[in-house]
Amino acid sequence: MIINIPENSDFSIHNIPFGIFSTADRSPRAGVAIGEHILDLAAVAELDVFDFNTAVLEKDTLNDFISLGKSITKRVRTNIQHWLQEEDSVLADKPELFVLQSEASMHMPVSIGDYTDFYSSIEHATNVGTMFRDPKNALMPNWKHIPVGYHGRASSIIVSGESIHRPKGQVLPKDATTPVFQASARLDFELEMGFITGKSTAVGESISTQDAEDYIFGMVLLNDWSARDIQKWEYVPLGPFLAKNFASHISPWIVTLEALEPFRVSGPEQDPKVLPYLEYEGMKNYDIKLEVGISPEGSEEQTVCHSNFKYMYWNMAQQLAHHTVNGCNINVGDLYGSGTISGKDENSYGSMLELAWMGTKPLKMKDGSDRKFINDGDTVIMRGSSEKDGIRVGFGEVAAKVLPAK
Amino acid sequence: MIINIPENSDFSIHNIPFGIFSTADRSPRAGVAIGEHILDLAAVAELDVFDFNTAVLEKDTLNDFISLGKSITKRVRTNIQHWLQEEDSVLADKPELFVLQSEASMHMPVSIGDYTDFYSSIEHATNVGTMFRDPKNALMPNWKHIPVGYHGRASSIIVSGESIHRPKGQVLPKDATTPVFQASARLDFELEMGFITGKSTAVGESISTQDAEDYIFGMVLLNDWSARDIQKWEYVPLGPFLAKNFASHISPWIVTLEALEPFRVSGPEQDPKVLPYLEYEGMKNYDIKLEVGISPEGSEEQTVCHSNFKYMYWNMAQQLAHHTVNGCNINVGDLYGSGTISGKDENSYGSMLELAWMGTKPLKMKDGSDRKFINDGDTVIMRGSSEKDGIRVGFGEVAAKVLPAK
Repeated sequence: MIINIPENSDFSIHNIPFGIFSTADRSPRAGVAIGEHILDLAAVAELDVFDFNTAVLEKDTLNDFISLGKSITKRVRTNIQHWLQEEDSVLADKPELFVLQSEASMHMPVSIGDYTDFYSSIEHATNVGTMFRDPKNALMPNWKHIPVGYHGRASSIIVSGESIHRPKGQVLPKDATTPVFQASARLDFELEMGFITGKSTAVGESISTQDAEDYIFGMVLLNDWSARDIQKWEYVPLGPFLAKNFASHISPWIVTLEALEPFRVSGPEQDPKVLPYLEYEGMKNYDIKLEVGISPEGSEEQTVCHSNFKYMYWNMAQQLAHHTVNGCNINVGDLYGSGTISGKDENSYGSMLELAWMGTKPLKMKDGSDRKFINDGDTVIMRGSSEKDGIRVGFGEVAAKVLPAK
Repeated sequence: MIINIPENSDFSIHNIPFGIFSTADRSPRAGVAIGEHILDLAAVAELDVFDFNTAVLEKDTLNDFISLGKSITKRVRTNIQHWLQEEDSVLADKPELFVLQSEASMHMPVSIGDYTDFYSSIEHATNVGTMFRDPKNALMPNWKHIPVGYHGRASSIIVSGESIHRPKGQVLPKDATTPVFQASARLDFELEMGFITGKSTAVGESISTQDAEDYIFGMVLLNDWSARDIQKWEYVPLGPFLAKNFASHISPWIVTLEALEPFRVSGPEQDPKVLPYLEYEGMKNYDIKLEVGISPEGSEEQTVCHSNFKYMYWNMAQQLAHHTVNGCNINVGDLYGSGTISGKDENSYGSMLELAWMGTKPLKMKDGSDRKFINDGDTVIMRGSSEKDGIRVGFGEVAAKVLPAK
């Protein structure tokens, strides 16, 4: 191996995720995470080893690189895997090609055109329906027929590491009929994953479940911050708006679908039967272990949730087929969120709303404090990784600190 | 006047709206509509009369031009007004600078980053609430406190003239519990206007009602197509999705806020009093007459609606202040729709849903046919213009034909 890769690294030779990084001496450009390093793709391009226009590797987003298509991007990934493993490859004896991740800044990997958020975990939808409506009819009548989703805000999706301020907004106090304006008192995370599209369609085109994966470049971790008190007052009848659009964080490295291939698993049985355009063949879920930690200001991190992407009721192929069945077009760099990923167990719920059950079961932190929702000074960290037969592929983390309201 | 401007033209010397056009011999570039012509700004730039980098006028969107800021874009507009009126100006005796609109193709004027749709007409919200809920409690409790809005799809916003196919999707038949997949049987238009932002903010920043107009470059007409049957089944609890995102049309010419200045009027009284961040001073509504026509295949156009933008309960400054009060950032080229603009009279309703009152009062067309919603082959045309003291400023039209489902 050309470069040392620590055992249990998320960024093993089997991964090769793409991102945008910068260093003190050079502006944002494309790179690949490998162990504790970044392979500088703009620098590799200068070795004249690629057979495409490498200007795309010098841009501050991956959109143009991804637009080259999977035939090229897959080959770049496998070439890099070979080069890293051959002692006399083009990458040998060139330490200047490798940048320590600790010495680099990560940027948004893509310019996101549109952001859609689904609601595809049956456990999450059931929990929310149980809390806010009727435990006996927790799921809406449409839930098992439609991968329910809504449009989110693309502009405020930011990269792991950037702190956010607690949002302010209208809230209806208990038993009041008139709202007040205040900092949200119920700021929550939502543990999600997102996929990024790598191919565009025209208005009027649809994508079948069979073809959908050709349109998916890769995946990231997604923390879809939510202000529950703002949401409750605003969301009827047109859905969440200011409760969500103040910020969402993604992890900086896009793990390709190819890297996730070994971790395919079958999804849950879908009963009732879905409409024909939502039927699919093969294993379309992925076994990706997820966890969420909260690190209060000046205190140790505490893991509050263990979940798994394999729990999803609706898979990505179904989401994309549904999204485009009416002719809605997609673009390279769009982000599609899974919705909060909860499992069956109480410690697998993907939000504080569920973990602390609307504040009725506060979580005890290591510093002795309680958590019903997220406090000022808390850093929320999400991690995801897959392991099978000695192969490990991980996402790194998406982490961000909450500062007091401005 | 350097060029003949027909009386009653939308594109009078007082207007000077910006757009992107192309001709058989030259690719898309910036232009200004004047009478029946387009003043080719990329060609004007070659005369060396502008004091900014005119590469922005040769792009296929106006985003970079608009990003120069109002101090420059306002001056470009007033310079053009002077040049057009002075017989010996830089534009004199240069017919090659003027392209007949009938010989040009119009393109999307901006690349839209995010699209938000509000729901700000009290008459429309009341009509919808009366039809679908309770006439006595037609408005939701939050409606008079919040300029209710939701995120729409930016990718499928297209320019006037492009035909669309009737969307397909899941619909719940009457008295059924299981949905079917079919072409929408209740395709509707929504008469809206949209504003386009001309200045960006960072995540965490808010815009006051007082400053909001500095962030608005101009306005367009917007037809926010809606499939009512798909919407009814899908929209609970997260809002409209496939019922809306198959396409929305905008008019090609962006009319600047400066051109609309003479048409300011007071908005309706807001009772109850709004929260302080939504309070505003001065006249923030605009008197813009709107009309909708339907032209069935092979038959004459019939006007089905006369409305006015001045009816809006929530104004654009309030919408933008609300949208950003939580720190949600905005970008140059974002589109913000008003929501359907209905007035008090039955012939001022801005959608077929309201005009034909859920199909109970079909409209009689000149060819003898009835309309409850929009038929295949129908072209829907929206127009908007303001007139006062001999000054006329118009938007031209947004028109599009509906083709059968694919």
